[in-house]
Amino acid sequence: MNQLSVQSVRITKVNEISDQLNDDIIVVEEPLEIRLGYGPMEMRDETNVSITMRTPGNDFELAIGFLFTEGIIKSSEDILSVKYCTNHQKVAQQYNIVRVELRPDIEFEASSFNRNFYMTSACGICGRASLDAIAIHFSKPDLDDKLKVNKEIIFTLSEKLKQKQTIFNNTGGIHAAALFKLNGELLLTMEDVGRHNALDKLIGSLLSLNKLNIAKEAVLFLSGRASFELMQKATMAGIKIVCAVGAPSSLAVSTAEEFGITLIGFLREGRFNIYSHQARVSQS
Amino acid sequence: MNQLSVQSVRITKVNEISDQLNDDIIVVEEPLEIRLGYGPMEMRDETNVSITMRTPGNDFELAIGFLFTEGIIKSSEDILSVKYCTNHQKVAQQYNIVRVELRPDIEFEASSFNRNFYMTSACGICGRASLDAIAIHFSKPDLDDKLKVNKEIIFTLSEKLKQKQTIFNNTGGIHAAALFKLNGELLLTMEDVGRHNALDKLIGSLLSLNKLNIAKEAVLFLSGRASFELMQKATMAGIKIVCAVGAPSSLAVSTAEEFGITLIGFLREGRFNIYSHQARVSQS
Repeated sequence: MNQLSVQSVRITKVNEISDQLNDDIIVVEEPLEIRLGYGPMEMRDETNVSITMRTPGNDFELAIGFLFTEGIIKSSEDILSVKYCTNHQKVAQQYNIVRVELRPDIEFEASSFNRNFYMTSACGICGRASLDAIAIHFSKPDLDDKLKVNKEIIFTLSEKLKQKQTIFNNTGGIHAAALFKLNGELLLTMEDVGRHNALDKLIGSLLSLNKLNIAKEAVLFLSGRASFELMQKATMAGIKIVCAVGAPSSLAVSTAEEFGITLIGFLREGRFNIYSHQARVSQS
Repeated sequence: MNQLSVQSVRITKVNEISDQLNDDIIVVEEPLEIRLGYGPMEMRDETNVSITMRTPGNDFELAIGFLFTEGIIKSSEDILSVKYCTNHQKVAQQYNIVRVELRPDIEFEASSFNRNFYMTSACGICGRASLDAIAIHFSKPDLDDKLKVNKEIIFTLSEKLKQKQTIFNNTGGIHAAALFKLNGELLLTMEDVGRHNALDKLIGSLLSLNKLNIAKEAVLFLSGRASFELMQKATMAGIKIVCAVGAPSSLAVSTAEEFGITLIGFLREGRFNIYSHQARVSQS
């Protein structure tokens, strides 16, 4: 049995005049580790060539495509077999590891390959491990913080950011992360082609000013979608309320749920969805 | 002197009734390597903790924020200094490497840190190195391929994909990569939370079917923005025409230019911009 690409969640749909409980569908985000078996059959080597957050489905094609676009294989004939490592100790991870066997005559140099990688932050070998990693650094979620943000304030955030987000206004090609006070005042905004970088710049800027404590009583606004990676960073910074213009992934929602973050998605023209800890959103 | 966050390019703006040359502004995408100096002052160690594609600007904040969200530092007081490694041999890379010195009493375990990373594909230590890496695998660009796609066909692609892109239709949280024939017929589409994964799935699927040669006479459609990473993958697959709904980055445009790809961006309701090799786009 393979994993599903979408997942049903219970959300609160909010607009100007009402809010109601609804079932909604979100896209699944799970880690995929690609392992490569290579070398002569009598002395087989294995190396991990990629761990990426992906949506389950077409995992074998993903592995083959990745090996090709990295220049490791020249055609599908270089491959002996592709299969899931279903002997993983955690059942939930059984379909998150794909092992590709290269033909024994295909040369692969693990050490030179590593140099061609770049890394994007966070996460461990599986979603669960990553959640555990956050938990080490992050004390138990504080749900009694009495934080409240009014829904009318939330409706105004996009417009306030638009007035500031200058690179996006010029190019349309950038993500923003912004921090607002609970009363809707814009504190700080950072931009980057990479949404994780925009958030790191924001958090790094607060740290440099010795003002990270501001984040604990503020609203983080994200111009795009909410992924696991962004929720991991928000958690580390002690942020309790996250509003994203786009959709959240399954792992973003479960991370928010577990670490006590109020996660709002699809924040657009007088409406939004609440995916977790909705008590912090107050009616006018 | 620091790098700029935006860059001016010469593009062709196309709509239903005309096309004209224009100056336009695109967001800069460049690699940033974060190096960490740690250990006792008399026996200092250095390790590379991140290489990410970013937009220049607030690089020190990015480095500090990254170290914090990864749990390497607890506050800015753990840091002795942050600076650019401006002694890099290539002038263009002088502001693409930031070195952070930890205080000698701050513990850092390089080996255990690596396990907490996941990698996303492609790219080398700098944009230039990455372009060189593609060049090794990819024969000189063939600009005499006589490929032509009519602008009226290009206008229809989004709508055709919308009819198929089922996960997105359900969740709004996913990227698609699709391959179309030059006559506008949809051949294949793949979806993923990660746009690089959607493209790897598409290319891997063609490889599995032994049909990668189709890609050389087809149009790749991307539901989001065009980054360096996507252009690198398209190049490896021999794709000659790329249409993105979103904006391209500076490195996407220079990669397309160098490797002979026609790059179209901002493909929306009867208009698009051509960023490179526009001869393949024909008028009706």
